[in-house]
Amino acid sequence: MAVPPASSVRRILVSLHESVGAEPSPGAPADYIPELATADPDLFGVATATADGDVHEVGDTCHAFTIQSISKPLLYGMALEDHGVDGVLAKVGVEPTGEAFNAIRLDEETGTPLNPMVNAGAIATTGLVRGADPAARLERILRTVGRYVGRRVEVDEAVYASEAATGHRNRAIAHLLRNSDVLEGDPEEALDLYFRQCAILVTCRDLALIGATLANRGVNPVTGERALEERHVARVLSVMATCGMYDAAGQWLFDVGLPAKSGVAGGVLAVLPGQIGIAAFSPPLDEFGNSVRGVRVCGELSRRFALHLFETPRPGRSAIRRRWTVASAGSRRRRTGEESAVLRAEGGAVRVYEVHGDLGFTAAAALARAVAEDLPGGGYAVFDVGRVTGVNRAAAAILGDLREALEAAGTHVVVVDPDARFAVRTVPPPEYPDAGTDLDAAVEWCEDLLLRRHGVQPQADRDDEVPLGDTELCRGMPAEEVAELAAVIERVEVAAGGALLRQGDPPDAVLALARGRVRVVAAAPDGGPPVRLAAVGPGMLMGEAAFVDGLPRSASAIAETDVVAYRLGREAFEGVSDHDDLRTRSHVLAAIARTLADRMRRVSAELAAMS
Amino acid sequence: MAVPPASSVRRILVSLHESVGAEPSPGAPADYIPELATADPDLFGVATATADGDVHEVGDTCHAFTIQSISKPLLYGMALEDHGVDGVLAKVGVEPTGEAFNAIRLDEETGTPLNPMVNAGAIATTGLVRGADPAARLERILRTVGRYVGRRVEVDEAVYASEAATGHRNRAIAHLLRNSDVLEGDPEEALDLYFRQCAILVTCRDLALIGATLANRGVNPVTGERALEERHVARVLSVMATCGMYDAAGQWLFDVGLPAKSGVAGGVLAVLPGQIGIAAFSPPLDEFGNSVRGVRVCGELSRRFALHLFETPRPGRSAIRRRWTVASAGSRRRRTGEESAVLRAEGGAVRVYEVHGDLGFTAAAALARAVAEDLPGGGYAVFDVGRVTGVNRAAAAILGDLREALEAAGTHVVVVDPDARFAVRTVPPPEYPDAGTDLDAAVEWCEDLLLRRHGVQPQADRDDEVPLGDTELCRGMPAEEVAELAAVIERVEVAAGGALLRQGDPPDAVLALARGRVRVVAAAPDGGPPVRLAAVGPGMLMGEAAFVDGLPRSASAIAETDVVAYRLGREAFEGVSDHDDLRTRSHVLAAIARTLADRMRRVSAELAAMS
Repeated sequence: MAVPPASSVRRILVSLHESVGAEPSPGAPADYIPELATADPDLFGVATATADGDVHEVGDTCHAFTIQSISKPLLYGMALEDHGVDGVLAKVGVEPTGEAFNAIRLDEETGTPLNPMVNAGAIATTGLVRGADPAARLERILRTVGRYVGRRVEVDEAVYASEAATGHRNRAIAHLLRNSDVLEGDPEEALDLYFRQCAILVTCRDLALIGATLANRGVNPVTGERALEERHVARVLSVMATCGMYDAAGQWLFDVGLPAKSGVAGGVLAVLPGQIGIAAFSPPLDEFGNSVRGVRVCGELSRRFALHLFETPRPGRSAIRRRWTVASAGSRRRRTGEESAVLRAEGGAVRVYEVHGDLGFTAAAALARAVAEDLPGGGYAVFDVGRVTGVNRAAAAILGDLREALEAAGTHVVVVDPDARFAVRTVPPPEYPDAGTDLDAAVEWCEDLLLRRHGVQPQADRDDEVPLGDTELCRGMPAEEVAELAAVIERVEVAAGGALLRQGDPPDAVLALARGRVRVVAAAPDGGPPVRLAAVGPGMLMGEAAFVDGLPRSASAIAETDVVAYRLGREAFEGVSDHDDLRTRSHVLAAIARTLADRMRRVSAELAAMS
Repeated sequence: MAVPPASSVRRILVSLHESVGAEPSPGAPADYIPELATADPDLFGVATATADGDVHEVGDTCHAFTIQSISKPLLYGMALEDHGVDGVLAKVGVEPTGEAFNAIRLDEETGTPLNPMVNAGAIATTGLVRGADPAARLERILRTVGRYVGRRVEVDEAVYASEAATGHRNRAIAHLLRNSDVLEGDPEEALDLYFRQCAILVTCRDLALIGATLANRGVNPVTGERALEERHVARVLSVMATCGMYDAAGQWLFDVGLPAKSGVAGGVLAVLPGQIGIAAFSPPLDEFGNSVRGVRVCGELSRRFALHLFETPRPGRSAIRRRWTVASAGSRRRRTGEESAVLRAEGGAVRVYEVHGDLGFTAAAALARAVAEDLPGGGYAVFDVGRVTGVNRAAAAILGDLREALEAAGTHVVVVDPDARFAVRTVPPPEYPDAGTDLDAAVEWCEDLLLRRHGVQPQADRDDEVPLGDTELCRGMPAEEVAELAAVIERVEVAAGGALLRQGDPPDAVLALARGRVRVVAAAPDGGPPVRLAAVGPGMLMGEAAFVDGLPRSASAIAETDVVAYRLGREAFEGVSDHDDLRTRSHVLAAIARTLADRMRRVSAELAAMS
């Protein structure tokens, strides 16, 4: 059972629907199309759909009515796709008219309609829709509207017939447009298609989804289907913003602050780009031809949800989720004391940026600035872009610039792009195969470069077999004890890819690596890909925690190369009782405790850096 | 030395300034005001300023010119502050005129100007600025403009005199406005003030800062001073969007997609709300009275930086930076085996949400939805809002609703608000004093509630003195060894607030807590407040890592209550040699290793959950 708060939005919609619907709506259904005049004036629905597909509806949201002028922006989008921006601008302008929806005014010089949201402009854009014949054009329109709403739509034949029989003014407009060559061919054909598409049946819920699709860069967030090419979405929203609400466009943007479109059947649709589509349906209209309740609902929702275009929250300005240097945290490669000392002292040269969010100009510029302020020339910069959800062209240009400038300044740049979503991933050398996809591996690579620059050969590079006495298991142990211990030690060889220890197994032994590289991994708690907890090199312990606490192993140890390890069985160790054995045992425990303490310190530092 | 990429934005501005400035600008400086006609047509500056105060300038950005019409939105903002929205709307409309800036057209019924961006509207809003006398009104205007640009501004007396002497058309407009009672009192007085404020001297850089101030909700991002009440910012930007560029407003929004304003001295200002102000200065004007190069620069910047209002990146839709439950991670309170087992098994009931970013409707609604989907009734929900940068009223309403609904469903809600920036912080009981400000303390509180609900008394609640033999130091140790150990153990008492161990001190002992509560804290790597690494209760070890590895202490242990502890000195421990002592030593080491292993497991789980 989910807790009620999912309905926080719904509750607001319900209360709004109640308050706006409490009295009969002023105004009356449109009467210039006889079929529309018969609409029930009490029908009233409100719906919202977010750009990520969360839909809420209250009231008569499933009642079908004709789309009327709300199709205008959709048709305009089709015209842009079919003819490009310039091709369409040659036929229809984008200036608000300051006049009514059925104004017959055309540009004095060119004879073109002033914008695509008045009838003249919409008849012109209907004439621009490509298709072999009228039926094919209608089918294209039905399919496109269908993609916006997420289902097949149909024409209401009665409304179409009524409108076609009485649309004298629109007929006059069509012939004027033919006269100025805005319409080519038979104007009656374009007009007929215009009347048909005006009569497409939609519901209030459909309108919310049209809005959500426009809010979601042209993709219906419920079906995932694209209804409009992304590059045209801003244009369509622009004409909605300046011309969508007829002669009250200025007041509408001032008050409501949302690109919007209304239809004479009583529908109203408003869009907050990137966020939400809101829709209302109520047939009685005001003097401008907009649904009275629809206008009220959009205004109220804009106010209550603070959706005004110029009032909404800033996009996250910091693209940096977290930044740290190797001086405070580090890779999970276990390091020798010498390595750790160098990394602590010089690790400031390796800077890690975990980047997130949708990157546009502002976020990218701020990121570039922060990086430039951080980094002197040289050094190492690791960018983890795994949590970036999008990069627009402005951000891509700035970040490309940043990488170039960093590299020109002698900085080694590694871009970690786990899902290869951006064309920027670093291709590392074969010794660090995962450094382009795994942050930890990338950091390890930079650490190794830093160590070598400071004359320290990383332990992991060692390819001879480390003698038992030099392993962590025998830290601080006299030679004679090492010899005793050697008697109960087993030598284990595992080929690359094999497991030395398995998560969940009983803790039967502790291992010290003699040669090769091992990765310690644990299953992710949420079933995601395994998490790399440590990388172990020659001389280092594995499985020590389970060895001392007797609990099942919490991680697996996987050989990255062919490896050799020393194995100390728990049984042999526990059985000890005589004095010399006790001394050895005590040394082994001290060695294990020291290794654990060392790891605790590193991990605590990492946690502190993360906090 | 900072690396070049800081100039990534600058480089684009430079290249744009070069390409647009390569040829002499078409058009000519305004000539209707004689003083303006003398402007050098080759002057050319470009500047940008982000909402967080990053300024870039290229070319003649310090040359002073008169603000002219760019003051109109600022005056309109003052009128809104002085008279409220309705008071101003009664005098000036907000509809685009589709006519030139100096149009004399007024509303046919009311005689009011159509919008505040044409001269008639601006003269009207100038008449609305309050002040004891004309001098006081001018001083208020100078101060307000000064707050937008971040410095004291002055009037260019020559331009003022020239404009006052030749502004016949504006004089006519003023008298018409007096005729329709839009102006009250002497119209010459308002007109004089209008001419003076048109002649305020600004630079291109100033314009960018005016833009950044509007982008930053009315606060100059460089000085931090407020220039316009936040609630009026959206209104001012709205009239700029629909009416700012005179009769090309539709085309401007379509192409450039930014609220903007130009002035006849050659300045152009555009704003992307929440993000950036961009400005250009070049005196030659086009047929509409807009700077030719200024229009080109704004268009190019909008395209190159992808700044179109309807094309910019979505604000981060997920407000949840990280979410986890106590089943996978937990507080840093060290737990007994029994406690850990219950927390692992039942910890799913304690859900932690780390919330971040600027929360508006969409982000808040998505958060509420996610929480509702996660949580069955009951349980515990911890919200850390320390990284939230802003909550608008819509988000506040939704989150208030969420909290209410959760609590109605029996969920224990804790809001952690470290800097007390929101009026939502939880006030916890005295036993958990920091739970309203510290995430870890809040999680600990919920864990304890969960444990008690499952019949397990948290160890930290224990207020008797734990005998030595029951501490972690003696885990698995026979009684006779405990007795031997007791001989070398020292009993330590520390009052609440005192330190048992100090970060950086030599590792002279390991401690086991007998009574009370202790917090283990480390200095933050970046000099921030100390990080709580662990909370220790009766029976638990402290200082064990340094004890075994001999390195200086990496953290301090601070008594939260009056405490008693057992202290085992390192010297006494190291000196051991006979058989029985060795056995004891071995046991102590095994106990310490076990404690360390236990902590490693917890910390590894926490890291895995964080990854």
